[in-house]
Formats: sequence, structure tokens, C-alpha cells
Amino acid sequence: MQFTAHDISLLLNGTVEGDPAATVSQLAKIEEAGPGCLSFLSNPKYEQFLYTTNASVVIVNNDQLLTAPVKATLIRVENAYSAFTVLLDKYNTIKLDKKGIEQPSFIHPTAQVGEGAYIGAFAYIGQNVTIGDNCKIYPNVNVGDNVTLGNNVTLFAGATVYFDCVIGNNVTIHSGAVIGSDGFGFAPNPDGTYTKIAQIGNVVIEDDVEIGANTAIDRATMGSTIIRKGVKIDNLVQVAHNVEVGVNTVIAGQAGISGSTKIGEHAVIGGQVGISGHLYIAGGTQVSAQTGINSSINEEGQVFGGTPYMPFKEYLRAHAKLRRLPEIDRKVYELEKLIEELRKGTAKE
Amino acid sequence: MQFTAHDISLLLNGTVEGDPAATVSQLAKIEEAGPGCLSFLSNPKYEQFLYTTNASVVIVNNDQLLTAPVKATLIRVENAYSAFTVLLDKYNTIKLDKKGIEQPSFIHPTAQVGEGAYIGAFAYIGQNVTIGDNCKIYPNVNVGDNVTLGNNVTLFAGATVYFDCVIGNNVTIHSGAVIGSDGFGFAPNPDGTYTKIAQIGNVVIEDDVEIGANTAIDRATMGSTIIRKGVKIDNLVQVAHNVEVGVNTVIAGQAGISGSTKIGEHAVIGGQVGISGHLYIAGGTQVSAQTGINSSINEEGQVFGGTPYMPFKEYLRAHAKLRRLPEIDRKVYELEKLIEELRKGTAKE
Amino acid sequence: MQFTAHDISLLLNGTVEGDPAATVSQLAKIEEAGPGCLSFLSNPKYEQFLYTTNASVVIVNNDQLLTAPVKATLIRVENAYSAFTVLLDKYNTIKLDKKGIEQPSFIHPTAQVGEGAYIGAFAYIGQNVTIGDNCKIYPNVNVGDNVTLGNNVTLFAGATVYFDCVIGNNVTIHSGAVIGSDGFGFAPNPDGTYTKIAQIGNVVIEDDVEIGANTAIDRATMGSTIIRKGVKIDNLVQVAHNVEVGVNTVIAGQAGISGSTKIGEHAVIGGQVGISGHLYIAGGTQVSAQTGINSSINEEGQVFGGTPYMPFKEYLRAHAKLRRLPEIDRKVYELEKLIEELRKGTAKE
Repeated sequence: MQFTAHDISLLLNGTVEGDPAATVSQLAKIEEAGPGCLSFLSNPKYEQFLYTTNASVVIVNNDQLLTAPVKATLIRVENAYSAFTVLLDKYNTIKLDKKGIEQPSFIHPTAQVGEGAYIGAFAYIGQNVTIGDNCKIYPNVNVGDNVTLGNNVTLFAGATVYFDCVIGNNVTIHSGAVIGSDGFGFAPNPDGTYTKIAQIGNVVIEDDVEIGANTAIDRATMGSTIIRKGVKIDNLVQVAHNVEVGVNTVIAGQAGISGSTKIGEHAVIGGQVGISGHLYIAGGTQVSAQTGINSSINEEGQVFGGTPYMPFKEYLRAHAKLRRLPEIDRKVYELEKLIEELRKGTAKE
Repeated sequence: MQFTAHDISLLLNGTVEGDPAATVSQLAKIEEAGPGCLSFLSNPKYEQFLYTTNASVVIVNNDQLLTAPVKATLIRVENAYSAFTVLLDKYNTIKLDKKGIEQPSFIHPTAQVGEGAYIGAFAYIGQNVTIGDNCKIYPNVNVGDNVTLGNNVTLFAGATVYFDCVIGNNVTIHSGAVIGSDGFGFAPNPDGTYTKIAQIGNVVIEDDVEIGANTAIDRATMGSTIIRKGVKIDNLVQVAHNVEVGVNTVIAGQAGISGSTKIGEHAVIGGQVGISGHLYIAGGTQVSAQTGINSSINEEGQVFGGTPYMPFKEYLRAHAKLRRLPEIDRKVYELEKLIEELRKGTAKE
Repeated sequence: MQFTAHDISLLLNGTVEGDPAATVSQLAKIEEAGPGCLSFLSNPKYEQFLYTTNASVVIVNNDQLLTAPVKATLIRVENAYSAFTVLLDKYNTIKLDKKGIEQPSFIHPTAQVGEGAYIGAFAYIGQNVTIGDNCKIYPNVNVGDNVTLGNNVTLFAGATVYFDCVIGNNVTIHSGAVIGSDGFGFAPNPDGTYTKIAQIGNVVIEDDVEIGANTAIDRATMGSTIIRKGVKIDNLVQVAHNVEVGVNTVIAGQAGISGSTKIGEHAVIGGQVGISGHLYIAGGTQVSAQTGINSSINEEGQVFGGTPYMPFKEYLRAHAKLRRLPEIDRKVYELEKLIEELRKGTAKE
């Protein structure tokens, strides 16, 4: 794919400064870009690279001042960063525009597949599955019986969706992610063994959700584990049975949410955070990386850190002092001795 | 599948109160159940829902008193909760009763497959594999050369069992779990590179074990990594080479057990716990979530928390005070000043 | 495979002491070995087993003294441990020497596959893929479009390499590992939703790297996520977009490295460690398990622990005192009372 500065300026509603016929075929960072690359400058910290870059075309803000000569052709737009992300997205959409059904794949005769689908080789589509339009099912993906996928769903290679789960529109699930595995439910017996509690619920994933590689979301014991509209979940995250994650909440890599916990809207859960079961986490809560949440958070919009958790600022203050604890301990010991001496002294008098 | 209250009462050895012909086709929680649903009441906290539920049939304890009129047909049994879990299990058994060999699948001519098997499309069964009766091998599962599976083993879609591993009866392994990958063993060289130590052992999983989605259990360097009878392991757990997990021990999500550590029987390891290598963890030990265990635990049945770990109650007390540490530090500073003043004062006199 | 003590002594350049015709077909630890087993003694702690082992042949150091009669045939070598690891490696190489292309597999007509390849059933090789010589692609592996693999690369069953990634020579990737999934990049919108930033970069893995089961390495937003020569990564590790891991660095299980962080050479990152984004970690840094690194480390070769991190020795001292914190708090309270009494006393006088 090759584009001229002129083509791109039309797409972005921008103004060309330099050679409108300059061609580009790749996107790159301004400090790494070579000839034939399109780049952008948004952060003033990188302005120096504007004068040294080998990029053929650079997108800049309308108000960008030039303090030295520039080799590259410039395209001026309102917001260079967001213009560039629009191009990234277009680039990816064209690049990943697979269509058609590769063989051998397995599509159960009772399954319904919408228009514009890509189904890779060795993908498995079970009984009574419904797949919307423009879905991309990469190779070795498993879609279990009775699953429903909306429109524009992408399941990357090796993702698994267990039977009965429901997935909305514009959902992307990365490789190795497992949706709908059994919740971890076992009833203890008097002899020390455990009896499995059958997990007959499902997972419901609403529209506009993205789920990272090797993340696991367990099906509910009964009812549904629910991932609400707009949620973004990173890699290797554990979401246990009957959890509900609120609209637009973001969960970073390797975090774990225990069973039946409900997280509100617009929360931000850091990497490697652990949240105990049967809790309520209020909307807008922000939890810093590696924090352990062991009780419900009812007030919205607070920030926490530590295990067990505390308000983030207190956490920072307390842990800053932790390093001084051996010295504090020693001082207390010395104070005890001093006071003992003083008391003896006073007693003598 | 549709059942009458009468059918179910026979199955559970219960007594019908209401219409024995009431039919149900689904299981649901009492607070969410609609017409055609079977539910149960066990926890007195939920009794209110008994009088408002739209469930067609509700299982209750024999001694359940009614303080208002009930629309649903009741089935009275000794223990409503355990009766309901029996039904959940029957429901799941019927639902997941797949049989037969889908095509294309790969079964090496030297492999032996027992009776009643389900082998999904794109499943791979290697050389000299032995599979017992009534096993379910879902699509895209890999069973490496020389692996032995007992009876009633379920490997969900995309699970992998490396060569030479041995799996007992009634074992369930969820999607994405990897059994028998190489242990992490490398010998350092003087030039800073590492030489891999070949990992020629295997993994042995005894009867009645369940292993969660995307969990990894490494093969032993030599000998076996052993998961004893009745162990339950959640999702995304790391079990390193030559580890042994004792009978009926439970390991929650994202916990990690380092190489050569032995865990006793009936232990409970919380989520995101880390246990160092070459340790012994006594039977009945309970470790709370996110705890770090860096030395052996020889006394049975204790409870721990914290990183590094300490007895759980001490952990709670210490961390409760952690928040006060900046104040303690300030007070010590003030005490030092006061004592200095007192000493000067005393000295003067 | 059966070998005599004589065969093995030639291979190891060793000296036979006992029956050169003694045959072995298995490798085992000295304390577990039976007849027909080859074992070794390196650690003096295990010397007792030399006199009781049922192994047919034991490799020992040239200078090993015998204090009792030995049943087994001995092979004396310079370094028994390293001689044995050579044998482990040979054993594994012979055992895992698969060749040929199993059917059904999917190899795009534009893909190039080198000599001596093994490609398992249900493996998927995309468009324009280049695979070097002697590569082993196990069943159900996915190699996306435009991927390059060097020579002697092993991808175990179910591993996934996304499009455009580049993998060097002698690289081993275990089952369930995902290379090249999208980085976790989303731009917040005023209405609380997020817009995905397309991730158009790739992952570059240099020579001699090993990557564990179910590990996820995200592709760069632009440019490359880079795993340098000789790096060893354990299971279930998260490596985010645009990270660079330096030569011969080792990362243990369940550790997580956030976006754009650069780790130097010869670092050792412990299990469950978390490292924040956009940091620099100097070469030779050692980070103990479960540590949280939230700022750059510029001095080489230091050792750290704790969350937030501190020098390892300080961490041990501080946490040892943590348990005493409730007592310290109580003492401070008592000191305050004593001083108050003393002041009153002094004031009176």
C-alpha cells in the first residue's frame, strides 16, 4: 500500500507543506522513521527529531512552529496525535481484512454464519452457534455449542469460547483467552475430599469489549459472569465466576477478580491486583499495581494501594517510612533506656 | 429436557407440596428464576424470595416454615442445597454427554482409545497414547506421545498434555492448560549465557483432580511432578518442575509454586500466592491471597499471610499498624526532643 | 535405546570402572534409579546413595573416593554433573527428533519451509511465512502471515505467533505462549469510553531464547517489542508492548513487565515481580520474587525486594521488624505516658 502526502491530507482534512507527491508505505516513530515512512510530531519533547528525521512525511499540529529547516513534507492538522491514530487504525483495518472460509475448518450444520466472515483453518464452530456479520474467526479457535457472537467480532488464533456464552458486537478476544471455563466451585466433604459444584451458567460479554491474550473468564455457577460494554481487559487476567465488571472499566495484566465480586463503571484496576470474592468496588475506583483488595469499597472515585489496601497517599507515606522501621525500633529502645535513667535520677532526688 | 416436580421428587427422594405435574426445563437462582425454572431455598436470608419467586418448582428443607402463601410447587428434602447440587450435576452430565469421533481429527495408529469416547475435530492423539473409557477430548486438544489417560477424563478445547505424562481417572483439565512443558532449568556459564538442562521427567496427575484454564504444570527434570488425588487447581496457576502437591489440596487462581517444593495434604493456597523452591509446606496449611512463602512450614494446620509470610493474625495486626507508621515516626521524634529537654532540665537542677 | 557403559564412556571421554558391558536405557536420580538406569553423583551430600543405588551405571567425578563397595559400574569424568547434562540433552534430542509434515496441516502456498522440518497436524502456517532449517512446529501451532522463523526453532503444541513477528535461531516456545498479541493501548474519550490505538508493530525474538508455557508477549504499538539473545522467560509471564529485555536476562514465572520498559543485560527477575511502564532497569539487576518496581534503576548489579522496592537487605531488615510494629506502637504510647508523668514530676519540683 502506497499513499501520497496529498492522499493523506485529504483523509485527515489537513494542509500539505512541501511536496504533495511524496509517497509513504509505512508508519513509524519520528526518531526511527526512514525514507518512505509517515510519522507524526505531537509531544514538544520530540521537536528536535522534526529537523533530523528521514521520514518522507510528518503530520504536525496546525500551530507547530519551525525553528530550523525541515526535509520532510509536512501535513498540518488540528491534532497530530489523534490524526495519526486514525491512520494507524485504517492501516490495521486494511491489513487485517481477511475474508472467506479456509479448509479444513469445522462448522456444524446447525451453525449460522453472517456475511463477510473469515473462518480460519482448524477453527471449530459448534452446534447452534450464531455468528453475526463481518466476524473474523482465526485458525484453531473454538466456539462451543449455542454460543452467540454479534457483528464485527474478532477471535484471534487459539481463543476458546465455551458453550452457551454470549458475545456482543465489536468484541476482540486475543489468542489463548478462555471464555466460559468452569468456575472454581467445590463443596468440602467431611473426609477431606471435595465435590464439584456443576457450573451451569455462562459468560456474557457486551459490546466494544477487548480481552487480552491468555486471560481466563469463568462461567457463572448459575446466571452469568458479565463483562459490560466498553470494558478493556489485558493479558493473563483471571475473572472468576459470577463476577460483574462495569461499563468502561479497565483491568491491567495479571490482575485477578475473585468470585461474585461486582466492579462498578469506569474503574481502573492495575496490574497484578488481587480482589477478594463477594465484594463491591464502587465506580471510578482506581487501584494501583499489586494491591490487594479484601473488603468492599463503597465511595466512588478513590485511589488505593497496598496489601491490604489503604488510600494511595497513605500507602505511599507508610511504605516510605517502612524502610526506617529498624531505626525507629532502635530509637524506641534507646528512649526506654533514657527514660529509665531519668526516672531513677528523678526518684533519687 | 423437561421434568415434572414429581420426576424430580423421585430423583431426590423428596415430598411434593403443590402441583406434582408442574414442569421445569431450567435451573436458576430463586431471586432470578422465571416460569419453567427449578430453584432452591437453603439460606434463610433469601426466604423472602420464596413468596415472590416466579420459579415453577422450589426445593426447600424439610423443616422450612411458610409464613406467607407460596405460588411455586415445593419439593421438601433433607438438605435443599446438596439436593440442588445433585441436580446441577445431572443437568451438566446430560448436557455435556458428547460421544463419537469428529473429523478431521488425528489419532495415531498406535494409540488406543477406550469405549464411549468423544474426540473433537482437530484434536491430536500422538503415538502410543492410551485413553481409558468415557473420555472427552474436545477440539484442538493435544495429547503427546506415550501419554496415558485414565477413565472419565475430560480435556476441554485447546488443552495440551506433553509426551510421557500420566493422567488418572476422573480428571478434568480446562482449556488452555498446559501439562508437561519443560521445567525452567538453565545452568549459568562463565560468559553470562545459560545452558538448558534437558527436562526428561514427566507430570503425573492422580485421580479426581481438576485443573483450571491456562494453568501450567511443568514436567520434572528427572522423575515426576506429581499432583496427588483430589487436588483442585484454579486458573492461571504455575506449578514448576518436580513439585508435589498433596492429596485434596486446593490452589486458587494465579498462585505459583516454585521448583521441587512439596505441599502436604489438605492445604489451601490462596490466589496470587507465591511459594519459593525446595520448600516443604506441611499438611493443612492455609495461605491467604498474595502471601509470599520463602521458607518451609513444618507445623501442620497453621494460617499465614504477608510477604514475607507470618502467622495470619500477626499479619493482620502488623498491617493494621502500618498505616500508623508515619505517626509513630513523628511521635518518636517528639519524644526524643522532650527527653532531651527533660535531661537538660534535670541536669541543671 | 540401549547403551553400554563403554559407549557412554567414549561419548564423555571418561574411564570405566567395573563392567564395560553394563547396559542402560534410562536416566534417573541416584536415589530413585533402578536396574537399567544411568545416574550420576556430583553433590557430596548424596554420596551415601552411591553404595546403595540400584542404578547399573553411575557417572562420578575423577576424584571421587570410595569408602564402601559399589555395585554399579562407574564412569569417571572431569565433571559428573555437566557430563550428565550432556547426556540428558542427547537423550532429549534423540527422543524429540520428529520430522515430516503430518496431515491435515495448513501451509500457505507462499510460505517457505526449510529442510528437516516437522510440521504437526492442524498446524497453521500463514502467507509469506519463512521457516528456517530443522524447525519443529507441533500440532495446533499458529504462525501468522509474514512471520520469519530462523533455524532450529521449536514451537510446541498450541503456541501462537501473530503476523509480522521475527524469531531467530535456536528459539524454543512452549505451548500456549502467545507472541505478538496487541499491546494494551487505549485513548480515553471525554464520555468515559476508550478508543483503541491500533498496534502495528511486531515482536522480535533474537537467537537462543526460550519462552515458557502460556506466556504473553505483546507486539509494539510501532517498532518492536524486543527479546534479546539468550533471554530465558518462564511460564505465564506478561511482557507488554515496546518492552526490551536485554541479552541473557532471566525472567521467572508470572512476572509482568509493563509497556516501554527496558531491562538491561544479565538481569534476573524473580517470580510474580511487577515492573511499571516506561522504566529503565540496569544490567545485572536482581529482583526477588513478588517485588514491585515503580521507578528506574540506574546502577548496575544491585539486588532489590519489597513493594515498593528497596535494597534487598533493607527489605529483609524492615520486614523482620514489621512483625514487631504493634509492640513498637504500644511502647511509644507507654513512653508518652511516662514522659508526661516525668514532666509533671519535674514541673512540681
